[in-house]
Amino acid sequence: MISDIEILGNTQKGIEFIKRTEQKKFLFSLVISYTATSEIPGITIAGEHPDLIKFTGPADAEFIHYGYCRSISVIPMTPDGKPTPALLTKTALEAASIPSVIINAGSKLSPKLPFIDMNLDYGKNIGKEPALSLDDVGKAVEYGRIIGRFLGASTDCLIIGESIPGGTTTAMGTLAGLGVTGLVSSSMPQNPVELKNKVVKDALQRLNSTDPFEVISQLGDPMIPSVAGILSTASEITNVLLAGGTQMAAVLAFAKSIGFEGKNTAVGTTSYVVEDKSANLVETISQIFDIPILVARLKLAESQISGLKSYSEGFVKEGAGAGGASIGCMLKTGIDAISLLGLIEKEYRKIT
Amino acid sequence: MISDIEILGNTQKGIEFIKRTEQKKFLFSLVISYTATSEIPGITIAGEHPDLIKFTGPADAEFIHYGYCRSISVIPMTPDGKPTPALLTKTALEAASIPSVIINAGSKLSPKLPFIDMNLDYGKNIGKEPALSLDDVGKAVEYGRIIGRFLGASTDCLIIGESIPGGTTTAMGTLAGLGVTGLVSSSMPQNPVELKNKVVKDALQRLNSTDPFEVISQLGDPMIPSVAGILSTASEITNVLLAGGTQMAAVLAFAKSIGFEGKNTAVGTTSYVVEDKSANLVETISQIFDIPILVARLKLAESQISGLKSYSEGFVKEGAGAGGASIGCMLKTGIDAISLLGLIEKEYRKIT
Repeated sequence: MISDIEILGNTQKGIEFIKRTEQKKFLFSLVISYTATSEIPGITIAGEHPDLIKFTGPADAEFIHYGYCRSISVIPMTPDGKPTPALLTKTALEAASIPSVIINAGSKLSPKLPFIDMNLDYGKNIGKEPALSLDDVGKAVEYGRIIGRFLGASTDCLIIGESIPGGTTTAMGTLAGLGVTGLVSSSMPQNPVELKNKVVKDALQRLNSTDPFEVISQLGDPMIPSVAGILSTASEITNVLLAGGTQMAAVLAFAKSIGFEGKNTAVGTTSYVVEDKSANLVETISQIFDIPILVARLKLAESQISGLKSYSEGFVKEGAGAGGASIGCMLKTGIDAISLLGLIEKEYRKIT
Repeated sequence: MISDIEILGNTQKGIEFIKRTEQKKFLFSLVISYTATSEIPGITIAGEHPDLIKFTGPADAEFIHYGYCRSISVIPMTPDGKPTPALLTKTALEAASIPSVIINAGSKLSPKLPFIDMNLDYGKNIGKEPALSLDDVGKAVEYGRIIGRFLGASTDCLIIGESIPGGTTTAMGTLAGLGVTGLVSSSMPQNPVELKNKVVKDALQRLNSTDPFEVISQLGDPMIPSVAGILSTASEITNVLLAGGTQMAAVLAFAKSIGFEGKNTAVGTTSYVVEDKSANLVETISQIFDIPILVARLKLAESQISGLKSYSEGFVKEGAGAGGASIGCMLKTGIDAISLLGLIEKEYRKIT
């Protein structure tokens, strides 16, 4: 039934996580945010045109809800047909009737749908200046904790995804600032590691404290403390699946530094992130917590649609909670990856 | 066990509603809003000082979450000690560990906590001009429907309360515009019925259509179409308890006019509203739907605290979902009204 979910990290805890959530109620939340770090040329594939980057989060949110975008008239896809991972998310949620909610944690623009507002400013370019004020870091955690209590009470498994263009760089910065060594993934096959390293190095020069709030303030983004807050309270009362790659490692590292112990928590991602040779997600997470990493073995390589196939060739890989949503779909309904691919292709054809 | 809940309206459906929700999961939502109609002198008790009226919704929301207010430094209480009904709501939710979420549907100010934003402008004074644009009425319904799908999927019973100062007048206007005759309740023992009638009469002169969206646009407020939207989708998948008095009659009338059929729905309120001689809530609702009205027989008359006792003397009566939250608490935990009063008094002493 769950043959297309692989368990990495702590296998025993992974089996238990699956047992607790199989055929149960899921709730999907997408935390949209923004870091001006994404405006550094060459750092992200999200929004090929710099003016469009700020639409990434709202467009993903709208696509998941409506099946089209309201804030932009174009389909969220690169010119050569690589679709936003929100396409996978939307298909998986719909196939399993998993309800979803959008959380705005410092998006530069508001999406055109109802959302939970955290009233946070967007993150600044960490290559040049602090990402957010210490006050906002505190608020993100506090508001996140309130949201986590509410969302966690309502489901057997809370999936938390993120959409923040440029977010792997701020994740790298956060990990570095918190003393976790790890290579971060990328939305591009040629991971611009040197560029990211330079940005993080510049940002690290401003850091003169080991205080985790200071680390986020200097090197992070608004998404990381927000999700850490949600995670810390939701996991007290239900299972939490952190849907993402590198960014969720940064969330875990920060959450640990403020007292979270890893309870009831798994990371859920796609095989494309785990197989990324330029990154080492599993090793990075294992430095932080001995928790399971559930991997959706999606079969996009077998697609006849080149835009979908490109995911298996190093493009996009993950985002908008696509891996976690796919895992939730498989756990809830028992669907396999090939059938899910059929639905994804159907959705792809609908929008093109 | 539920001896302090009285069933009015359709008794059989009321018994079934109780059976479906007893000892089950509840979720409380508070829809905060604003109508400038509240600024007409003498129309509401909420915020004795006109400059403070706009804080009513945010203050109620903050009080329910934090046990104190952040947007104002004072305790939300009249100078002579009549507390906001949010005190009852907070006590009931806490006693039963019922999670809560705030929905901002056109509040003039944002509360200082995370909330679901419907991105609506506040309602204008219907005595002078249209309450909201037709576009905003449509958006309120549409966004409400999205929210209802998400909230309804997460619980066995969704309680929807409201906090909108001046809301009984716009409820009266909406009922009149939709052809429902009924007397509306008030937060004051001397219900300013003539003043309300005059305001509604002035507003009715602008109405030259029977279109329900036009009625809300001219005579309503942003809360009514928002809650109608939430109700219409949530009730498809779970039980819904509309927590309030007159305002919820207006919600039901509007919801009916756009196709809602009353499924899985009950009204929950306090005995003080039902006993209000200047109003006739049960008769008004029975004109719209044959549904149950659950009445929390709170024992505030037995309190030694005069501010609480005043509820039984015609002041405040209800608001911020107090009746529905009390019913939810009694249904979930089996607590009786006297024990609940003890907790309310304890909370009252804590804040004074």
